[in-house]
Amino acid sequence: MLTRSDIQEWFEALQQNICSQLEEADGQGKFINDNWNRKEGGGGLSRVLTTGRIIEKGGVNFSAVWGKTPEPVLKMMKLEADNHPDFFATGVSIVMHPINPMVPIIHMNVRYFEMSDGTWWFGGGIDLTPHYVNEEDARYFHQTLRSVCEAHHSSYYPEFKKWADDYFFIRHRNETRGVGGIFFDYLKGENGFTKESRFEFVKGVGSAFAPLYTQLMKSNHNYPYNEKEKQWQFLRRGRYVEFNLVWDRGTKFGLDTDGRTESILMSLPPQASWEYNHQPAENTAEAKTLSFLRKGIQWA
Amino acid sequence: MLTRSDIQEWFEALQQNICSQLEEADGQGKFINDNWNRKEGGGGLSRVLTTGRIIEKGGVNFSAVWGKTPEPVLKMMKLEADNHPDFFATGVSIVMHPINPMVPIIHMNVRYFEMSDGTWWFGGGIDLTPHYVNEEDARYFHQTLRSVCEAHHSSYYPEFKKWADDYFFIRHRNETRGVGGIFFDYLKGENGFTKESRFEFVKGVGSAFAPLYTQLMKSNHNYPYNEKEKQWQFLRRGRYVEFNLVWDRGTKFGLDTDGRTESILMSLPPQASWEYNHQPAENTAEAKTLSFLRKGIQWA
Repeated sequence: MLTRSDIQEWFEALQQNICSQLEEADGQGKFINDNWNRKEGGGGLSRVLTTGRIIEKGGVNFSAVWGKTPEPVLKMMKLEADNHPDFFATGVSIVMHPINPMVPIIHMNVRYFEMSDGTWWFGGGIDLTPHYVNEEDARYFHQTLRSVCEAHHSSYYPEFKKWADDYFFIRHRNETRGVGGIFFDYLKGENGFTKESRFEFVKGVGSAFAPLYTQLMKSNHNYPYNEKEKQWQFLRRGRYVEFNLVWDRGTKFGLDTDGRTESILMSLPPQASWEYNHQPAENTAEAKTLSFLRKGIQWA
Repeated sequence: MLTRSDIQEWFEALQQNICSQLEEADGQGKFINDNWNRKEGGGGLSRVLTTGRIIEKGGVNFSAVWGKTPEPVLKMMKLEADNHPDFFATGVSIVMHPINPMVPIIHMNVRYFEMSDGTWWFGGGIDLTPHYVNEEDARYFHQTLRSVCEAHHSSYYPEFKKWADDYFFIRHRNETRGVGGIFFDYLKGENGFTKESRFEFVKGVGSAFAPLYTQLMKSNHNYPYNEKEKQWQFLRRGRYVEFNLVWDRGTKFGLDTDGRTESILMSLPPQASWEYNHQPAENTAEAKTLSFLRKGIQWA
């Protein structure tokens, strides 16, 4: 029988494993360790890499927290506060901001949530935000995710790909954050799925991250780039900030429930820029990238 | 009898007047004009200055919009949507990001709102965000605001100063955005106040902006600064982004009601930085600045 400790331990090992693989691929940057405790129960380990050879700023966070369920969670779950249920949540969250604008930003999250009434669910996602969309990379990324999904259920990829398109969307810009990926939440023990089978899928997603991203690091970090392309990267990072601070439910939830600010906001880039009403000229690589930032593109 | 057109025209003239005074004080930058229309009624004029001698990026926006009251406004006002009331709103919004970290960021807003059921109110505010707190400047800023307020009512400054402390507060950082200022909203015709007397106060606030900020530009833009201070400025601008995108009601409201994104987000800085868990060393100018970023300091 799968326990919360089993899941927590697997996530802890995943964090270490991913950090090792990223350090090896970077060849220079080292993750620092920052342990923290949560007053109301639990804590986490934030691991942050800066000034790497390929990664400029990246974070791989693990946390396992518990206690009285926060008000916003009860509201979200439409539960009565009178029951005063306890919760347990554990997960790994990753964002990588590379130096070279030809290397994409990546994000991954896997998480498990459990309430004292016995309900539980898994959630997570992985999405790619290229500063310049490389179609071959986008196809490789989605094909890999499709394979991971199909090893567990035929409905997963189409359903979770669409969910990512809808979730990683910057409404006020009418742009997707990048080329999407997969997003899933509230994966429960229903319709023939068990806690074990859901966990196997989440393990598949978590394990796919490092090979996928280190491959994209290797194949792109030697591309030459100029000052203009660096400037475009800063503008795209500005959009990343807008998504995370305005629309990302995880960030909102963390800040609303007095989560650990530095761990929540490790997703923000080392620098970002804003230019009033910036529009790339027609037929440029920048304009081409914007044309890919929309929902519903079938990359795989 | 004061009409909505009177108020709108005064705001339009204020925008031009402020832009002229800022251009003169800057001595190099020129505002571009960007007219826009709102599909559902009204529109605005965004004026943006970049690459000035003192101002790196600044916006002075005017708008006058009307039509069916948006859902979020009805909710906020606790009104029934069944009445389908119309609204009219006009205002001027300003944010200035200077080049030199020794010159503070400033924000000002004055606005008027009216509903078809006859209710109306004024709102607004002005607050100062120094990258490095200069106590003399903070006192000068608050003394000026106190004088503006006291010319209209003895309760205004203490009440609106406290409101600014509470409003311009970055909850997830437990820091105020800067040294505060004044904030006010829902100023109606009650307790002896008339539309005329409320408007006179708002005019006082609007008219105070240019002399106040051009003075701070002049007295600070020649201070020398180094790379380390510039880096600190970028981190403080990061906090400015966090406040505007996470907590600012005006920004939230604008993005929720499909307002004009470029005009709403003109408040964002030209560049900003984030560093994981940055803490200034003890007894530095940066640490001293942080010590001033709290509520309840009586500057005047």
